[in-house]
Amino acid sequence: MSEDVDLPESHPRYESLLTRHRIEAGVDRGITSRQGLIAQGRGEAFDYLLGERTIDSADDAERAAAAHLLSADHAVVSVNGNAAALVPGELVELAEVTGADLEVNLFNRTEERIEAIADYLREHGATDVKGLTADGRIPGLDHERAKVDADGIGAADVVLVPLEDGDRAEALGEMGKTELVIDLNPRSRSAEVATVPIIDNIIRAIPNITEHARDLRGDPDAQQDAIDTFDADSALTDAERTIREGDLE
Amino acid sequence: MSEDVDLPESHPRYESLLTRHRIEAGVDRGITSRQGLIAQGRGEAFDYLLGERTIDSADDAERAAAAHLLSADHAVVSVNGNAAALVPGELVELAEVTGADLEVNLFNRTEERIEAIADYLREHGATDVKGLTADGRIPGLDHERAKVDADGIGAADVVLVPLEDGDRAEALGEMGKTELVIDLNPRSRSAEVATVPIIDNIIRAIPNITEHARDLRGDPDAQQDAIDTFDADSALTDAERTIREGDLE
Repeated sequence: MSEDVDLPESHPRYESLLTRHRIEAGVDRGITSRQGLIAQGRGEAFDYLLGERTIDSADDAERAAAAHLLSADHAVVSVNGNAAALVPGELVELAEVTGADLEVNLFNRTEERIEAIADYLREHGATDVKGLTADGRIPGLDHERAKVDADGIGAADVVLVPLEDGDRAEALGEMGKTELVIDLNPRSRSAEVATVPIIDNIIRAIPNITEHARDLRGDPDAQQDAIDTFDADSALTDAERTIREGDLE
Repeated sequence: MSEDVDLPESHPRYESLLTRHRIEAGVDRGITSRQGLIAQGRGEAFDYLLGERTIDSADDAERAAAAHLLSADHAVVSVNGNAAALVPGELVELAEVTGADLEVNLFNRTEERIEAIADYLREHGATDVKGLTADGRIPGLDHERAKVDADGIGAADVVLVPLEDGDRAEALGEMGKTELVIDLNPRSRSAEVATVPIIDNIIRAIPNITEHARDLRGDPDAQQDAIDTFDADSALTDAERTIREGDLE
């Protein structure tokens, strides 16, 4: 995680400084939008309340997410501006390890931003980036918000959507897709409609899903076990309790 | 509050849409920085947890703040990029009603942003805007962060600092100034070092301080009473309890 910034991993504020650095680079590259910066701030506040760590129930969710991606017929990792800015190389690695497609999917869709994000993912090693065809539609959403690739999210049975808008998360769920959502607010609509809500910072979540995928790869029984033992409701309750009871300092 | 946006005050999301509109305008005008957008998002998350309302202890703090501004020898309202973007006319009105000076004071100081903010305040009716001389220094801060006007914050006995950085809030407190801080995180350093911590959204706080100032004006006994009865520690505890116990939905 340290290839692009001159910062020792032992630095006490390593993660937050790395995040800041990557978000700034994302703005410079036309990847992170104004709304993305505000969303980043909301995430920071929830992460602060969570204690800026991966709680046990989030680790369980990340293991279940890895299992879903591995056992899917067709898994897609959806990538928006903040996800691309924060974890570009980590998303490429996750897609490689799980065999998932990467698809750029923006709430405020412009061709320029989609191209900029696809370029950024390619610079970080992606060979095939979907999201540019936009020949499929998610039912129940207005025009621009509904666009997906027909052979990407349109055809997927499992979709990982980091930092997704509530309306779209709900519409994807109604299409019958298994939805893996990364969101720091345990009571957001996106988290509540998810098959697997992952209440964690994407900076920690994506590498940890990849690590679990490496561990679960080639072991269908262990994958099934990770899926069966994960309980979304209790994970959400646990995250909310942690936010409530954590030390604010 | 509705002069600059075509939105009925009865709209259920009036306040949040107005906020969004003003922040966007602030970015377009070079007033709101990238860091300001992220800070806005952090504030939104805490406000959501607070229930997006002025809790009773915050109203008490706003009344005490009004009393301090009125009874000061020399009060200054410090204005940064987000404060200017969110409540430009309301800050001008507060300064008028309390007799306080307005001083632009930025964490990431550039002459361009200071000029843009001063212009924006003047467009909203300010006649005298400090912060451009920068001939005073706050001890204990590095060069750019230490700059203030010698006859503004430098000479003030009471300073209202909305959305202030923790280091600077602490340094101002160490100068012996009575510090009134608006911050949505009750455990931020800024809130903890404040004489009067106001745990509320600046959009609601500034007009409410003005309303209390109108009520307290010309009544030194009532001002003293508002100051004496306010308890900073119990206000912080109350805000934290509200965040903990509020309904996340």
